[in-house]
Amino acid sequence: MKSIGFSTLMLSFLTGSAIAAQTDAGKAIEKPAPPTTAQVLANSSAHDWRQPDPANLLYLDLAGGGRVIMELAPAFAPRHADNIRALAREHYFDQLAILRVQENYVVQWGDPDGKREVGKAKRTLPAEFFRSATGLNFSWLPDGDVYAPEVGFVDGFAAARNSETGQAWLAHCYGTLGVGRDMGADSGGGTELYVVIGHSPRHLDRNITVAGRVLQGMEKLTVLPRGTGALGFYEKPEQYVSIQSLRVAADLPEAEQVPLEVLRTDTPTWNAYVDTRRNRRDSWFLEPTGHVELCNVGVPVRAVTMLAKAGQ
Amino acid sequence: MKSIGFSTLMLSFLTGSAIAAQTDAGKAIEKPAPPTTAQVLANSSAHDWRQPDPANLLYLDLAGGGRVIMELAPAFAPRHADNIRALAREHYFDQLAILRVQENYVVQWGDPDGKREVGKAKRTLPAEFFRSATGLNFSWLPDGDVYAPEVGFVDGFAAARNSETGQAWLAHCYGTLGVGRDMGADSGGGTELYVVIGHSPRHLDRNITVAGRVLQGMEKLTVLPRGTGALGFYEKPEQYVSIQSLRVAADLPEAEQVPLEVLRTDTPTWNAYVDTRRNRRDSWFLEPTGHVELCNVGVPVRAVTMLAKAGQ
Repeated sequence: MKSIGFSTLMLSFLTGSAIAAQTDAGKAIEKPAPPTTAQVLANSSAHDWRQPDPANLLYLDLAGGGRVIMELAPAFAPRHADNIRALAREHYFDQLAILRVQENYVVQWGDPDGKREVGKAKRTLPAEFFRSATGLNFSWLPDGDVYAPEVGFVDGFAAARNSETGQAWLAHCYGTLGVGRDMGADSGGGTELYVVIGHSPRHLDRNITVAGRVLQGMEKLTVLPRGTGALGFYEKPEQYVSIQSLRVAADLPEAEQVPLEVLRTDTPTWNAYVDTRRNRRDSWFLEPTGHVELCNVGVPVRAVTMLAKAGQ
Repeated sequence: MKSIGFSTLMLSFLTGSAIAAQTDAGKAIEKPAPPTTAQVLANSSAHDWRQPDPANLLYLDLAGGGRVIMELAPAFAPRHADNIRALAREHYFDQLAILRVQENYVVQWGDPDGKREVGKAKRTLPAEFFRSATGLNFSWLPDGDVYAPEVGFVDGFAAARNSETGQAWLAHCYGTLGVGRDMGADSGGGTELYVVIGHSPRHLDRNITVAGRVLQGMEKLTVLPRGTGALGFYEKPEQYVSIQSLRVAADLPEAEQVPLEVLRTDTPTWNAYVDTRRNRRDSWFLEPTGHVELCNVGVPVRAVTMLAKAGQ
């Protein structure tokens, strides 16, 4: 069976071939070939990985089975992160449903009847489309971007900024978690959430509040039947995909929490990783690209085994 | 239910509001607001649409139901287009299977056993990763690109070119149809084909032969269960998704052909369409983007009703 391209994390670790190089002094030395993606990750240390705060992790459990784990981004949408946590703690989403699956666009969930009470949570909030670029741990991606003056990563989230306006915002990449809204900027609040399941719709940037991103379980959303109504909404209640629960990881007993780690985006290992995404060095690739687009970088997530966790 | 963004073709056609403008002579006139995407398409004429050559249309019918319609791009991969047609005419793919579904990457089909005869078709062909940029009807997209010096569209296909090397090639966007290969550049030929189902993997450009793109039925591929093996391959034969047949539309009776039209990419209507993708004018959008990325433009496809067809 022929394969096209290689998956980052499934590669066996290839031994780098050595190439000869000349030092300034003219002495031939053996210089190792630049590493592949798999090699960079294999050589990473524990400090290259970040354990997300369980207060920022959401578990979306579908009634039919399947869990989607998302990380909130309170640095960009603090009010929405608080409100989504509040909604989850009131069990707002339990027995609600996925209402919309639009091909090459989004999966969206909420209350089909619009009758559920929000308790102490808010139904709407002021928009958090962007924030000040000041004070962010922004790892600049020098490869350029069609949509924004500058792009990069902030604590694992694909982001953009504009030095003229002083604004920074999260980018809509595959797997982005966003907050549905009506026509008004301030008409969303977190009672309807969506995840991007297609080619990254960057035209949504700064038009809607991004609340986080999916860390694990995208395939539970992407395989759902597409809605046949306008905008991919399901047309009949029996088509809805029922939600068992949406919980904040921190509210669960530790034994029920899923230990995940996210590659830090502010380390030399991160820079080495990005370079392997820019220039794929797996032997299948014949023509290195030399550039990488923001949503094609991908921020690795790994499951932490109990053994490794105990050993740290 | 809140919605995020609008689908191009499902929008009701809004009436453009009028804004006042001054002519050079200082006389106030009513200048219509720029059109929305839906308005551009609604105002298109029959000449703005292209009827693909049935010799370039492939119908992939899954045994479990569902048809995917693809258009070959012989201007870029003439040998592969010929060979894929030859394979289809030998019914090479019938009762073969989808072998691989990798999340955010590709669906791939072929012969799980590698034993099927290819008849007069070829098993491998010289690579067609790029061609001369000369002689192409290239509609340049001025918005820039992270991967290529220049991008645009050629007869409905997202493409790139490099004036220094004189090369042009097709870009890997969502829905791109490509030719699986092994390690060698010339190791593919069309017996294994793939379709991109995730964020556009542009790093594959010029590393593999692109044969065309999906015009209709992407949702028949994107909902398939993800393979749990390395690179998303299915691990057990019972997981394979059986193919009923793959046919060239031209080989079917006309009554069995699906009449589709593709928006031409070399007309003033096309330029107006792209501009509505660059600056979304639907009232939901608050912050126009001002740019559009190659794989986010989307080339509209429409079904031709019998009535409309008879009336032309």
